[in-house]
Amino acid sequence: MKIYFSGSIRGGREDAELYAQIIEELKQYGEVLTEHIGQMDLQEEEITDEQIHNQDMAWLTASDIIIAEVTVPSLGVGYEIGRGLEMKKPIYCFHRTEKTSAMISGCKEIETYKYDQKEEIKALFSKLFQEQ
Amino acid sequence: MKIYFSGSIRGGREDAELYAQIIEELKQYGEVLTEHIGQMDLQEEEITDEQIHNQDMAWLTASDIIIAEVTVPSLGVGYEIGRGLEMKKPIYCFHRTEKTSAMISGCKEIETYKYDQKEEIKALFSKLFQEQ
Repeated sequence: MKIYFSGSIRGGREDAELYAQIIEELKQYGEVLTEHIGQMDLQEEEITDEQIHNQDMAWLTASDIIIAEVTVPSLGVGYEIGRGLEMKKPIYCFHRTEKTSAMISGCKEIETYKYDQKEEIKALFSKLFQEQ
Repeated sequence: MKIYFSGSIRGGREDAELYAQIIEELKQYGEVLTEHIGQMDLQEEEITDEQIHNQDMAWLTASDIIIAEVTVPSLGVGYEIGRGLEMKKPIYCFHRTEKTSAMISGCKEIETYKYDQKEEIKALFSKLFQEQ
């Protein structure tokens, strides 16, 4: 099972530590292609934006499932979800805020979950990976 | 010429007044399908997220061009750009920050412009609509 985890990079890194914890949890269920999303000292300078885009699209194409933490608004996360739909990938979005974008919660092909505690997300992962 | 203008709603409304000015400018060149994006008193309560999503996707499908102000990070804007690519629409993104998402600036099918003053965006619109 190849997992594409999506979280904010340039949109804001305040949830980076949470992303790292989510990625650790996801590793129980498969290979996380985008493990760098959780790195606190993420360096982007060595590759061009086009290389970043094309690498991420290659991982998105190779993935079996997309898991996105959508609490921090991010153009890149929205873009990846939009492209993932085109590729007919199963997409699961998680947020702690009361609402997320209507483009996400209003799209019937995307499963969206509101959660408060990290433990809830673990239980949701356990359930959704059993169904895959 | 049907224009889909995309700007942040739930991601943050700090640029709402700028969106309104951009929309006024765009009206010279065609019909702006998403004029509500610039409304300072935007009310979303009366329709469901699914209705918002499906209406926006219908407008995106009907549009001839997508213009996005991407300074404020937004899941919805990223999603619309991703879906617009799938529909092979011409997409033009404008930002005032030094960088925008690598998913936007690194995608070779999207034209991305950095600007400082509103006047620059007007000159860019004039040029790009001449080319359409």
